[in-house]
Amino acid sequence: MNFTKMHGCKNDYLYIDCTKNELENPAEVSIKLSDRHTGIGSDGIILICPSTVADFRMRIFNADGSEAEMCGNGIRCVGKYVYDFGLTKNEEVRIETGVRTKEEEAAGIIPENCIRILKLTVKDGKVASATVDMGRPILTPSEIPVISDKDKFINEAVNVDGKDWYLTCISMGNPHAVTFVDDTKSLDLPVIGPKFEFNKIFPNRTNTEFIKVISRNEIEMRVWERGSGETLACGTGACASAYAAMLNGLADDEVRVHLLGGDLIIKYDRNTDHIFMTGPCETVFSGSITI
Amino acid sequence: MNFTKMHGCKNDYLYIDCTKNELENPAEVSIKLSDRHTGIGSDGIILICPSTVADFRMRIFNADGSEAEMCGNGIRCVGKYVYDFGLTKNEEVRIETGVRTKEEEAAGIIPENCIRILKLTVKDGKVASATVDMGRPILTPSEIPVISDKDKFINEAVNVDGKDWYLTCISMGNPHAVTFVDDTKSLDLPVIGPKFEFNKIFPNRTNTEFIKVISRNEIEMRVWERGSGETLACGTGACASAYAAMLNGLADDEVRVHLLGGDLIIKYDRNTDHIFMTGPCETVFSGSITI
Repeated sequence: MNFTKMHGCKNDYLYIDCTKNELENPAEVSIKLSDRHTGIGSDGIILICPSTVADFRMRIFNADGSEAEMCGNGIRCVGKYVYDFGLTKNEEVRIETGVRTKEEEAAGIIPENCIRILKLTVKDGKVASATVDMGRPILTPSEIPVISDKDKFINEAVNVDGKDWYLTCISMGNPHAVTFVDDTKSLDLPVIGPKFEFNKIFPNRTNTEFIKVISRNEIEMRVWERGSGETLACGTGACASAYAAMLNGLADDEVRVHLLGGDLIIKYDRNTDHIFMTGPCETVFSGSITI
Repeated sequence: MNFTKMHGCKNDYLYIDCTKNELENPAEVSIKLSDRHTGIGSDGIILICPSTVADFRMRIFNADGSEAEMCGNGIRCVGKYVYDFGLTKNEEVRIETGVRTKEEEAAGIIPENCIRILKLTVKDGKVASATVDMGRPILTPSEIPVISDKDKFINEAVNVDGKDWYLTCISMGNPHAVTFVDDTKSLDLPVIGPKFEFNKIFPNRTNTEFIKVISRNEIEMRVWERGSGETLACGTGACASAYAAMLNGLADDEVRVHLLGGDLIIKYDRNTDHIFMTGPCETVFSGSITI
């Protein structure tokens, strides 16, 4: 089986072209190949498949075999893959993500965030970065979800581990709680992260972003991801954080987010109420393995 | 550049054939390729080079670019590499390790543990496991080194973090302190490991093995490696632990050691006073990358 290892902000997957041949047992294959010592090593595998409603369909399998709906760093690399390997000649591609349920597929329903539009930036014939329409940020507490009787949850004091933290809660398809701090580096995330994640005001748990505002166009972020712990980059978290800074009057409509794994540019478009994320996508190497 | 990822007890390196072409800047290449997110991902790279004193010479570069002298899990994979890829037809190979200094090389001196003899077990034309002569265990405290006025350091009480631990100290070319416990799983190694490593009785710090004896032929081991923290496997640690169990009258001359990364068989040969280690070596995949 042929594969290409690619990463976006150090979020690395093995990309497999399934446009002509289906991959059997993708969950098992992901567990086996993702092992960093006995396999190739990755955060998971991403299958590039045919789509009946978009140009391509992506399926993401995490290193533990579970299937994920969407990954902001992964989808940029899908754009690079289909362009660099000649599966498309277009610099704008529409990707069907895993948001659609089997029932919706059978009924021909396409949910709001199912198809993502990518704009590719090409340099010397290869894709160097991509911009993804990340959709509409959701502020209604019940849809995030966060338990609250307010209309929006912006800069609200929440007691976590005996201390008041001011949180802004946003869903980008998944729940985020954003808090502004003076210094991100000194935080002991493995200790405090779970106390946010499992706080009783978050019925589905939450991702938490700790943000230092550098200027109106630049923020620094560390993220505690629900179920994963601290990670090097989280695309939806960067969107939620930049938008939270805007909502709190701390930032303009375009913000560079410094993550541990690299930088992302987040832009809010007032006309469409959509958030656009631009970031790098890189090929590490291609190889082949017997599975 | 072509490479093959291989592992022994989950200790994984990228193996590079340098018998015909030298690799420039191996330290830089190791740092770049070993990165688990932006590179291929490994514990380091191992170069297979020509030797003037043995069949082949191995050079090990860690993921941080530093050069290591010897790796018990790595050398078994070197044996598999040279046989499986047809660089030799012999089932016994002599490997020059990095123990020899430049001065010794210039003077034509070959230190005691510089050349290691490997016996390969071949199944269906490929190497399945290898036995390595790990040399003579050293018990003299000043040569380990451990500070003591005794001839040997066997089952001596040492106060670590307010509690007496009974330690047996052995050098297998590197220092080991072995202690026997009722249960290895409940130990909080990141907390107690450094307290052994930096204890003032070890002038060069120490590796520490925590051993549960299951029977006279079977032990369970967790290891805190000097400079690396807890690792999945440590070949010299397994040798020291099995031999420590023998010295304390807890084991016979052949012991299976269960490590987190897999099993090793350690055999002590009374005639030669040498320790022999047998373990698996596995190929993950071969690939090529532009560096």
